[in-house]
Amino acid sequence: MLKELQEEKVFKDPVHNSIYVQDLTIWKLINTPEFQRLRRIRQLGTSYLTFHGAEHSRFSHSLGVYEITRKIISQFERNRYADWPQEEKLLSLCASLLHDVGHGPFSHSLEEIFHIDHEQWTCEVILGDTGINQILRQVDPQFPEKVASVIRKKYEKPIVVSLVSSQLDADRMDYLLRDAYFTGVNYGTFDIDRILRMLRPYKGKIVVKESGMHAVEDYLMSRYQMYWQVYFHPVTRSSEIILRQIFRRASELHGEGYEFGFMLPPIRELLEGSITLHQYLKLDEAMLQTVFGQWSDERDELLSDLCRRFLNRQLYKYAELESEDKNWLESIRHEWQEIGLNPDYHMEFDTPMDSPYAIYKPGALPDSKEKPPILLLNEHEQLTEISVKSDIIRSIAGLHRGKYYIYYPEERVLPHVEKLSLETRKKLSI
Amino acid sequence: MLKELQEEKVFKDPVHNSIYVQDLTIWKLINTPEFQRLRRIRQLGTSYLTFHGAEHSRFSHSLGVYEITRKIISQFERNRYADWPQEEKLLSLCASLLHDVGHGPFSHSLEEIFHIDHEQWTCEVILGDTGINQILRQVDPQFPEKVASVIRKKYEKPIVVSLVSSQLDADRMDYLLRDAYFTGVNYGTFDIDRILRMLRPYKGKIVVKESGMHAVEDYLMSRYQMYWQVYFHPVTRSSEIILRQIFRRASELHGEGYEFGFMLPPIRELLEGSITLHQYLKLDEAMLQTVFGQWSDERDELLSDLCRRFLNRQLYKYAELESEDKNWLESIRHEWQEIGLNPDYHMEFDTPMDSPYAIYKPGALPDSKEKPPILLLNEHEQLTEISVKSDIIRSIAGLHRGKYYIYYPEERVLPHVEKLSLETRKKLSI
Amino acid sequence: MLKELQEEKVFKDPVHNSIYVQDLTIWKLINTPEFQRLRRIRQLGTSYLTFHGAEHSRFSHSLGVYEITRKIISQFERNRYADWPQEEKLLSLCASLLHDVGHGPFSHSLEEIFHIDHEQWTCEVILGDTGINQILRQVDPQFPEKVASVIRKKYEKPIVVSLVSSQLDADRMDYLLRDAYFTGVNYGTFDIDRILRMLRPYKGKIVVKESGMHAVEDYLMSRYQMYWQVYFHPVTRSSEIILRQIFRRASELHGEGYEFGFMLPPIRELLEGSITLHQYLKLDEAMLQTVFGQWSDERDELLSDLCRRFLNRQLYKYAELESEDKNWLESIRHEWQEIGLNPDYHMEFDTPMDSPYAIYKPGALPDSKEKPPILLLNEHEQLTEISVKSDIIRSIAGLHRGKYYIYYPEERVLPHVEKLSLETRKKLSI
Amino acid sequence: MLKELQEEKVFKDPVHNSIYVQDLTIWKLINTPEFQRLRRIRQLGTSYLTFHGAEHSRFSHSLGVYEITRKIISQFERNRYADWPQEEKLLSLCASLLHDVGHGPFSHSLEEIFHIDHEQWTCEVILGDTGINQILRQVDPQFPEKVASVIRKKYEKPIVVSLVSSQLDADRMDYLLRDAYFTGVNYGTFDIDRILRMLRPYKGKIVVKESGMHAVEDYLMSRYQMYWQVYFHPVTRSSEIILRQIFRRASELHGEGYEFGFMLPPIRELLEGSITLHQYLKLDEAMLQTVFGQWSDERDELLSDLCRRFLNRQLYKYAELESEDKNWLESIRHEWQEIGLNPDYHMEFDTPMDSPYAIYKPGALPDSKEKPPILLLNEHEQLTEISVKSDIIRSIAGLHRGKYYIYYPEERVLPHVEKLSLETRKKLSI
Repeated sequence: MLKELQEEKVFKDPVHNSIYVQDLTIWKLINTPEFQRLRRIRQLGTSYLTFHGAEHSRFSHSLGVYEITRKIISQFERNRYADWPQEEKLLSLCASLLHDVGHGPFSHSLEEIFHIDHEQWTCEVILGDTGINQILRQVDPQFPEKVASVIRKKYEKPIVVSLVSSQLDADRMDYLLRDAYFTGVNYGTFDIDRILRMLRPYKGKIVVKESGMHAVEDYLMSRYQMYWQVYFHPVTRSSEIILRQIFRRASELHGEGYEFGFMLPPIRELLEGSITLHQYLKLDEAMLQTVFGQWSDERDELLSDLCRRFLNRQLYKYAELESEDKNWLESIRHEWQEIGLNPDYHMEFDTPMDSPYAIYKPGALPDSKEKPPILLLNEHEQLTEISVKSDIIRSIAGLHRGKYYIYYPEERVLPHVEKLSLETRKKLSI
Repeated sequence: MLKELQEEKVFKDPVHNSIYVQDLTIWKLINTPEFQRLRRIRQLGTSYLTFHGAEHSRFSHSLGVYEITRKIISQFERNRYADWPQEEKLLSLCASLLHDVGHGPFSHSLEEIFHIDHEQWTCEVILGDTGINQILRQVDPQFPEKVASVIRKKYEKPIVVSLVSSQLDADRMDYLLRDAYFTGVNYGTFDIDRILRMLRPYKGKIVVKESGMHAVEDYLMSRYQMYWQVYFHPVTRSSEIILRQIFRRASELHGEGYEFGFMLPPIRELLEGSITLHQYLKLDEAMLQTVFGQWSDERDELLSDLCRRFLNRQLYKYAELESEDKNWLESIRHEWQEIGLNPDYHMEFDTPMDSPYAIYKPGALPDSKEKPPILLLNEHEQLTEISVKSDIIRSIAGLHRGKYYIYYPEERVLPHVEKLSLETRKKLSI
Repeated sequence: MLKELQEEKVFKDPVHNSIYVQDLTIWKLINTPEFQRLRRIRQLGTSYLTFHGAEHSRFSHSLGVYEITRKIISQFERNRYADWPQEEKLLSLCASLLHDVGHGPFSHSLEEIFHIDHEQWTCEVILGDTGINQILRQVDPQFPEKVASVIRKKYEKPIVVSLVSSQLDADRMDYLLRDAYFTGVNYGTFDIDRILRMLRPYKGKIVVKESGMHAVEDYLMSRYQMYWQVYFHPVTRSSEIILRQIFRRASELHGEGYEFGFMLPPIRELLEGSITLHQYLKLDEAMLQTVFGQWSDERDELLSDLCRRFLNRQLYKYAELESEDKNWLESIRHEWQEIGLNPDYHMEFDTPMDSPYAIYKPGALPDSKEKPPILLLNEHEQLTEISVKSDIIRSIAGLHRGKYYIYYPEERVLPHVEKLSLETRKKLSI
Repeated sequence: MLKELQEEKVFKDPVHNSIYVQDLTIWKLINTPEFQRLRRIRQLGTSYLTFHGAEHSRFSHSLGVYEITRKIISQFERNRYADWPQEEKLLSLCASLLHDVGHGPFSHSLEEIFHIDHEQWTCEVILGDTGINQILRQVDPQFPEKVASVIRKKYEKPIVVSLVSSQLDADRMDYLLRDAYFTGVNYGTFDIDRILRMLRPYKGKIVVKESGMHAVEDYLMSRYQMYWQVYFHPVTRSSEIILRQIFRRASELHGEGYEFGFMLPPIRELLEGSITLHQYLKLDEAMLQTVFGQWSDERDELLSDLCRRFLNRQLYKYAELESEDKNWLESIRHEWQEIGLNPDYHMEFDTPMDSPYAIYKPGALPDSKEKPPILLLNEHEQLTEISVKSDIIRSIAGLHRGKYYIYYPEERVLPHVEKLSLETRKKLSI
């Protein structure tokens, strides 16, 4: 099923040094317009406004996930492990390469506003009328459906799903290393070579040789640090709030029949909730930035102010709160109205939450949905859930850490500071 | 003149680890819309199509140049060198931070087509009606003019110009390290800490202590390798050719009165050659990519084909030639016409040239214009031009290396291969 | 009091890149025979038998501790913190440079056998008839006593002691980074630049700015991983056991009046417990290795066997036990005797213990004796012990992890395996 | 012939990350006393006196050369290149592992004084009565002779010799990277992964794919910089001079029948020129340092002074000369005698020489003896010597750079400075 390229293709990659493509199907998939579109979607959304190096794209991340998967399978093949179904190599490589192909621009923010599910869009790209579908069908008419079932975590051989999606999968390993590299933060580094060497296929699962426990501990600590240092950075959250407000406001205006000074087709359909696959694939971050640039001159002041804020990085200020005090949150809305601000837009309450590792009920984190625990395999072929053996992981697994922030436009509040209640002034440290 | 910030601001940077802002003027300059716009202009133009990591922006490079300049001055101050005019610190920092602020999107390609001079635009941004000008004027009404004169290399104290622009300046040191980091190529690394420690202000020039000679050799070799491995990579050149052809075609069409299906104001004025500062500052790479996306459906097939090629990375194929054979280049135009191709667009001849280090007549390279040679200072306070002492640099200084490439749309030529002359088939290896 | 060198001296260092010596006293101290002797004492004792890169010396570590201290003080001076006593700079630098100068060869093993206290020897080197004492007295006749009192943690200004000895001191920061670098293990890395930037002198203590909390978490996790991955590695423990047995056996033989085929003066006095400062300073690891080489041919078979094992790296095998089962440990001694082995030498029980961070009662770990907790300083000038704020540190601070190992000469046990009890065979997995 | 280990053994290595041993013969060879002895011989001799990190041993370098060879062969096997004789894998691995096993302590200095040839000793270790010979004979009674013939560069299949010894061999690639890592110097780094990927077996030679040319350029520049920055560092040369003088003096004394206060058997036989293989293998750097420690108290003042200088790093001062002025060198001998110094010991003239790359007549450098040039292989299967294609290599290949130094005990000369001729004072800058 695998058609080898005459000559191996090599991508230079700062994280994995080189990315090797040996198979013609993979090479053709990379060269489709749908996959090239990932170059115009950043891996970390608005994080570049906090960490200026974080301009890397989902294109490079997708290649990285493919490369890690290729290395894992290559290790399995070299050691001829009986529990690895060799015939599933191409399927695994395609699924890992394509797992993010349905992501839209500033994905997490847009998904929330427009109820988009990127996993569903990924399946539509794989199954719909696209260059990707055409190439997958050349392998076998049933092949697109097989790839989509791996994405949906329903494929009949769970080991293939486990390879592409688990608490220690190629996706997470790549993004931690890549995001650390491009932000310049040191926290995300761990010994991936050692972890890859320690993975074993075992009875339908990917497990870790027990002697690799400490490397996994280090990986989980890296993940924890990256969540709090990078992914949940309050400046990034502030820019995501602005972004969501832009789309919320544009939707409201569209609903009210407002006539926009500038509009592009896929945006209109996005606002209407009637977007087709063809139009969805036209959306990218370049287009959104361009639209925001034009909307910076819109008549609606709320919208134009938000767009200028986003482009010129004039974000909302934040204050950390000790807890979610609902009474105060209610009362501050009134204070905001009294000083002439719009409490629906000019303040936002945010509570990022993370659990470093989910032992039994992994439902907490958006991206850990249904992800099974990490299992250690000892020399007597016994499996143990990692937190049983690792006192470090046991100690942190129970943690459910949350923080509480309030965001607001500082320069519009400051002139009225004397009208604010003492409690509000104290909580905002103004 | 320097107004210190209450608390030092720190940017996390993958190349320099941290970038420190201690002065309020610098902090305000970074937060202007004109400087933030540099986030939407890539440092390496189209190189991300060759090296997928190279998405880094001129924003991060400008901060890096500022940081290197800050470190050099700080070393000078710590050692209390008499030849360093301490009062020029803020001027030097502002000039280094702002030196690229006039760059447009895909700068090198656009400059060639539209005869834009980014240095001149930089001066307009500094002197015109901008946020940057406003902040500089707060220092002193004459201050914007002083900064512009450093950019123009006319400032009265040559040592300030030498700091910002020489064959071993903060600009080059930052871009070599940064481009190497983001492409993932190892060639660009050199011991910048050692070089910075070896710099000395001396009689109106920045010179290098003789014991730093080997570190400078290493820096010049890095530069040489980066030129041939990265900056002149034929795939990057191919994408630049496509880009220039898009603008050439759009200009032709505009000249012919063609009605574009999609147009945005600053693009129209760019094509007309009447662009104002205000409109120029609206241009960025996000806008160009969006326009190309819309133009992918234009009626003019030449234009829409070029735009699709650029966005989907379906570039022209290249063949390396041994020399510039003008007769053959003439004859192949006819062959092209006979197989139904447009020789003005479907073939392009390209000759990248570089000289690793310019001793006496530095006019050769576009960016080495008028840049003075590197001087070594020995313990007896004698200056020597570096190639006199370094046999490595003397060996390579004379080199003027050039390569010859021809680019063409392979998939449109291949079906007609039997109609091509033997010479053409041999030269294109088809 | 500080006499500046005409020109700063620079040591090239792989961990800190460069080590800067600006003061003449420091320069002279480095060039004394007593300090140069540290080149012949490895930082990690026998760890090079497990990690072949770990050949680095206490000389390089001592320079590293000096350099970190220099950087901390330089940051304090740059920011002109009132709580830092500027007049204590030279004292702090000397104490940090000299803190390990009393270490003998394979320090931890020898200290245990011969009841040596390296801190006491360090004070003797500082106060006795040595080159170091002579140079310190040139500063001030009382200066050696001041340096010694910092080493003894009795100096009148506790902030100086805190700088040189705490749970986040220059000693620990250097050894974690250095040992990670030379072993090649990635676990020991943390963001030292950030930590150094966050340290503040505050009311007689060195504390950490609260925003540096995550960097300190990372440092403590690195420390935890280094203990279990490197310092307590069972192969290293095995070589330390052999080493201690060599000295135990030599002492026994010496006590019995055995005539050694080879002997050198300081070794004899070491065995007799009558070693003088002058002779102690002749001891180094080169001498011990040479003596072991000669003793490889001793008539006493126990001694010669042990020496050959050490030099040729034919170490004892180990088995991990679930707990310390005193009954079994007693019974295995009899089994050993029955198969002709010497239970006093041919088996050894070992229980490495570590606590990652000591909150209130820091007595647990040998090197954390009396070391005060890490304190965070917030913007309202409030101090909080770090485990109150950091859930990660709180989670791991309580851990008192121990492991249980038994060591034995495998090749002498295996031929008699059928004579061993079932329990013993199971516990040793043979 | 290859007997696989049940489980792959892994050495943690800071340069290659991991070193993999899959074959039982290799594993046994590493565990012989003769190979373990390499732990007590430094890779860079006395360089640790200049670069304090350079304590790494020939043990770690030998493992590194083995690992690079293993990677090259593994690439050849993966690509099933017809020109690689697969049956020579074990021979190649053994020869690369053992190539340095005959090195003595402070090899280069001792070889010069005692006319030792380490290559010859390597063959004696392989062929003589040693643990290594015993294990090689288990493969095949003729196997030791085959390994020795590869070491001697006489093996019938030149490609095996070319793998182990050429201008781009595993030996050089490992030592450049390793020496750069442990000294902390950045100059020695190059892209080894890319070079290894570009190597091809071709008609009895190892050649480089043409597209790897720039990586090879970078490797040769690294080599050039390492020679001048590290290997020829004047402080290292100074310590080698002291070392050679110690042995010259000891030989003289021994010849004169002088009775040493301390002597060890292999040293005596070394001085007598009658050393046997068994005794040679007892020599190591620990023993020499111990002997020097004892000789620091010898009655012969010349010898004891030299030994103290070496141990306490009180080296000779150096001055760089513009050329080798034989007349002045003659006259300064008289001046030395007049101020009471011994010109045979208290001054030494030194002229390090290097050629970065040898095109046709590679005889210049000691270690480039008979090493063939580097060949590039293009896609038409044509071979070209690299300097024909690379203008950088062509430029530097011709260089034969030399420097001239004079060394002397500064503190014994300074008091008599007024008695010295003007020329001498000027040349020594005193």
